[in-house]
Amino acid sequence: MKDPIRPTDDEARALAVHLLRTARFGALATHDPETGLPHVARVAVGHEGADALLLISDLSLHTRHLAANPGAALLLGEPGDKGDPLTHPRMTLQGHCEPADKAALREGWLASHPKSTLYYDFADFRMVRLVAGAIHLNGGFGKAYRLNRQDLTGIDQGATD
Amino acid sequence: MKDPIRPTDDEARALAVHLLRTARFGALATHDPETGLPHVARVAVGHEGADALLLISDLSLHTRHLAANPGAALLLGEPGDKGDPLTHPRMTLQGHCEPADKAALREGWLASHPKSTLYYDFADFRMVRLVAGAIHLNGGFGKAYRLNRQDLTGIDQGATD
Repeated sequence: MKDPIRPTDDEARALAVHLLRTARFGALATHDPETGLPHVARVAVGHEGADALLLISDLSLHTRHLAANPGAALLLGEPGDKGDPLTHPRMTLQGHCEPADKAALREGWLASHPKSTLYYDFADFRMVRLVAGAIHLNGGFGKAYRLNRQDLTGIDQGATD
Repeated sequence: MKDPIRPTDDEARALAVHLLRTARFGALATHDPETGLPHVARVAVGHEGADALLLISDLSLHTRHLAANPGAALLLGEPGDKGDPLTHPRMTLQGHCEPADKAALREGWLASHPKSTLYYDFADFRMVRLVAGAIHLNGGFGKAYRLNRQDLTGIDQGATD
């Protein structure tokens, strides 16, 4: 089987940064300890540097899953209503979730997610940070890349080589 | 912690059937044996009865994951471009993937996915069926239900009580 992964270039890095920065929601995969099966749910998404931020409810299955096992993956890059959704660029961040400081992140989050003002301060909502160990970028058919977290921070600091 | 799951009613069943029948793509969670982490990817989705059908490429990570472990979860119900995506109804099917007969399903699939005519017959595309053991329906904040496969087939046969 031929290797479908292309060498990472600046165009791929810029696309990945764009997908992370513009994401407002995504699909979060977790490990369900009750069934031993994967689970996936829609979650609200923001970012800080190269990390995705997730605002999640303690009542949700995925929050309970993460308490038992912080390993997770997040799909970003939502297709619009037009065109073939499988040619729309998307990205999977795969890594581990860590607690994040909800109070400190409040202002930035509410600026990009104004509707979550209604529930941001609820005690049963928490913020977590997904620190990606691997990043799978798919720019459309035949355009697959494997990036790492440094590929995102490099662009952040203008060091795009 | 209060139980956030509502009793299943016909409205919930009808919503679940609608989400399954209108899905053209979704987010597929798999177990990645290389990292031990969950993975999630966008896949093309159809249906047959109460089962979701997935048209997947042998070059993809998720197809390799399923070959090692058929446990999977699929998120259906894509928000449009308007409104809060977290109030948009969605559903997670959790279960196991089985091989499906791509040739027999060809006509139905191409009717609902005309753009996949380009690659449907490629030898490295296969069809699998996700047989759900559990169905998590979320109709919006505070509207969570847990359904089973029979809740979908019951409606299919007009037996909605």
